[in-house]
Amino acid sequence: MGLLDSFNFLSQKIMQHILVLGAGLSSSYLINYFIKHAPAYNWHITVADASLETAQQKINHSEYATALQLDATNEIAIGKLVQSSDIVVSLLPPTLHVLIAKQCIALGKHLVTASYITDGMKALHEEALHAGVLLLNECGLDPGIDHLSAKKIIDDIHAKGGEIISFKSHCGGLVAPEYDDNPWNYKFTWNPRNVVLSGQATAKFLNEGKLKYIIPQHIFEQTEPVTITHYGEFESYANRDSLSYIEPYNLTKATTVFRGTLRKKGYCQTWNLLVKLGLTDDTFTVANIHTMRALLHALVPGNNVDELEQRVCAFLNITATSNEFEKLKWLGLFENSQLENAEATPAQLLQQLLQVKWKLQKSELDMIVMKHEFVYELNHSAHYLTSELVVKGENEILTAMAKTVGLPMAIATKLILQNTIATRGVAMPLHTEFYEPMLAELAEHGIQFSENTTLLPQ
Amino acid sequence: MGLLDSFNFLSQKIMQHILVLGAGLSSSYLINYFIKHAPAYNWHITVADASLETAQQKINHSEYATALQLDATNEIAIGKLVQSSDIVVSLLPPTLHVLIAKQCIALGKHLVTASYITDGMKALHEEALHAGVLLLNECGLDPGIDHLSAKKIIDDIHAKGGEIISFKSHCGGLVAPEYDDNPWNYKFTWNPRNVVLSGQATAKFLNEGKLKYIIPQHIFEQTEPVTITHYGEFESYANRDSLSYIEPYNLTKATTVFRGTLRKKGYCQTWNLLVKLGLTDDTFTVANIHTMRALLHALVPGNNVDELEQRVCAFLNITATSNEFEKLKWLGLFENSQLENAEATPAQLLQQLLQVKWKLQKSELDMIVMKHEFVYELNHSAHYLTSELVVKGENEILTAMAKTVGLPMAIATKLILQNTIATRGVAMPLHTEFYEPMLAELAEHGIQFSENTTLLPQ
Repeated sequence: MGLLDSFNFLSQKIMQHILVLGAGLSSSYLINYFIKHAPAYNWHITVADASLETAQQKINHSEYATALQLDATNEIAIGKLVQSSDIVVSLLPPTLHVLIAKQCIALGKHLVTASYITDGMKALHEEALHAGVLLLNECGLDPGIDHLSAKKIIDDIHAKGGEIISFKSHCGGLVAPEYDDNPWNYKFTWNPRNVVLSGQATAKFLNEGKLKYIIPQHIFEQTEPVTITHYGEFESYANRDSLSYIEPYNLTKATTVFRGTLRKKGYCQTWNLLVKLGLTDDTFTVANIHTMRALLHALVPGNNVDELEQRVCAFLNITATSNEFEKLKWLGLFENSQLENAEATPAQLLQQLLQVKWKLQKSELDMIVMKHEFVYELNHSAHYLTSELVVKGENEILTAMAKTVGLPMAIATKLILQNTIATRGVAMPLHTEFYEPMLAELAEHGIQFSENTTLLPQ
Repeated sequence: MGLLDSFNFLSQKIMQHILVLGAGLSSSYLINYFIKHAPAYNWHITVADASLETAQQKINHSEYATALQLDATNEIAIGKLVQSSDIVVSLLPPTLHVLIAKQCIALGKHLVTASYITDGMKALHEEALHAGVLLLNECGLDPGIDHLSAKKIIDDIHAKGGEIISFKSHCGGLVAPEYDDNPWNYKFTWNPRNVVLSGQATAKFLNEGKLKYIIPQHIFEQTEPVTITHYGEFESYANRDSLSYIEPYNLTKATTVFRGTLRKKGYCQTWNLLVKLGLTDDTFTVANIHTMRALLHALVPGNNVDELEQRVCAFLNITATSNEFEKLKWLGLFENSQLENAEATPAQLLQQLLQVKWKLQKSELDMIVMKHEFVYELNHSAHYLTSELVVKGENEILTAMAKTVGLPMAIATKLILQNTIATRGVAMPLHTEFYEPMLAELAEHGIQFSENTTLLPQ
């Protein structure tokens, strides 16, 4: 028995306390994992949420867990909870993470989140290092599993002496094909507001050695076609900032770096029509508009309400028999049914409509799709490597999204508690010590990538 | 001699002190007016500017004026100047006006500006009323002369028992036709940054009884044609908020209320191409871009720099022999000359280019064009009334813009000093006491509208 093993053995004898802040949508898998492993690892889990009932539902009377009510803005209450735990997993809104991270530093506790590293979080790096604390962020799906899987491939290629020329990565949360029964081939499986406001900042990426910018009015026009084995044709629209991945991923020699969001083929073209209509605009509030038809009437040139359909077709340069127009009609854009909240932005009104039309029903399952594409040179040959992941939800609560966001955090938490992680400070899971054990255990849970490499013609 | 006249007579015996804050572009006409009338009215003018030299140039050794250096953020210094004056005319940036207005209230002095009434200014109304102080804003060209001229017509129509059905108003600062020698038919006659960023907020107006919104990507596509007698064809793109004029103009029965900005015909269509290209985007900073050609390359899909012209044509759906493409080429968008400031937004880089290409040369004159269009019902007939104004600059300093912005403020200042204005509090020049004497005196300076009324077919 080596020194580290002895230490692990010992540490497992002492009870370890895991504090889970927030018991929302993405917490089920994570909490189930902790409770399942609690007896073996001698863990106790405290789940704190704004709603005591929600927290109680999630721990489901487990003897290894405690449910608490928590006001996430109450610093003193959070401080007490952090103090009495060994590690903190936060599923709270990202804006609260800097505050929690500060308490973790002060009290010498590690923190795990699935959120992007903000400037505020980044600024805590030195302090966290000094306190010997790990603030592990971007440890969910995207960001999270994308880091683990992409970085492992990158490190492997580099280890073989290869050089990466091109990296493209795509990810999307969609409805499983069995339940894909609407003309948009999309249902909400995550925060609807984020979907409606997606693509409203200029996208930056690198393409064949050149910086590329796509302004919001063109984002859904300039998509990349993506095929997923057995799952057909998708399209990927550019994410806000692909350039920020170049350094952490060690892609400084790549001439193409692109990250995008996946939708089924055809979605973006019609979404772009909603953008053109002004229905995704979140910058102004409409007044005295009580139906979607009235909103559309206000946004499209012309005055004849009876000819609204023809006016929309002319404005968008589409025909009334087109696929696109059918999709718009299917959404109910031309209907006279009363809107709930009339004092709202067009984006808010569109969201109200979509939440009804794109609702994932209780019996329906979601699906996560991720694909990395690499071109690399090795031994004077160019190789094309793809790595694909498809995960389907198990049921209404154990969704693919909850699973792929929650499990990486849960596994990372276990690894940290087992003292196998040397990283300290503000970090993303980009190193071998994260991706090797995490990808291995994710595979055991069915989260497994399929890789394929072909030689490109000279 | 009536009571008021006696008072005026008396007041003219006492020296009155006018404080002019800011001696920038629009101050020349204003200061000349004050100096010219100073002996007759026993005025002394103090001109304070960040640059003493600029202030001195403007007063041109007049014995009736003093030039001072002033730091506009120095509240104490401003307070002293306000204290020793009878009225304050501020040409400082609008953001400083609330501060100055507060000092005017505290010291019991009237204020005249040409700026839009901000929420901060509006909030001072009660306080100003209580202090018996007039804070007269929107007293330049647009806003200013538009108020005077439109409100006089509106009041006249109402006085005759007419009802206004439709009001459209357009204004633009352009190059005089004699110097209109570029394919855009436009040169900068005012703040270039405002021109580049124009049309970047959703426009709201009323059209035949219906609220209309135009989102930024369509503003330059949906223009109104406008003809100006003897000056040919123009086009008017929608201003941000035409609805805010309904109440102050007493247009509550009008079913159409539209305000727009005038350009020569054809300008907006090609400006819209710059919008589509992303060149007017001010929300992100480009990196490592050193020429306009490189910027365009980054903004337009594709990778072949040699085919940039073809790519732009394909992207914009125009031909290389089109008028639009000629205008883009004329701007130098495809050139490889080095940009001054490479770390900038596309809008800032475009502005750099336009400031060279659209420069109004020293020998060239500018031109102000304004047109109101009314439809009103009177005696069971519908009438169409137009009121047009064209003002050309006199020389490089006494531009049409400086004249039309400065003179209304100067005349209002005179009227206030003569005690002919009863209005107090935060106000715009919308009442008879403003527009009757002001329009009459503006006409003496060649700022005169031409009215024409025709009967519309039943």
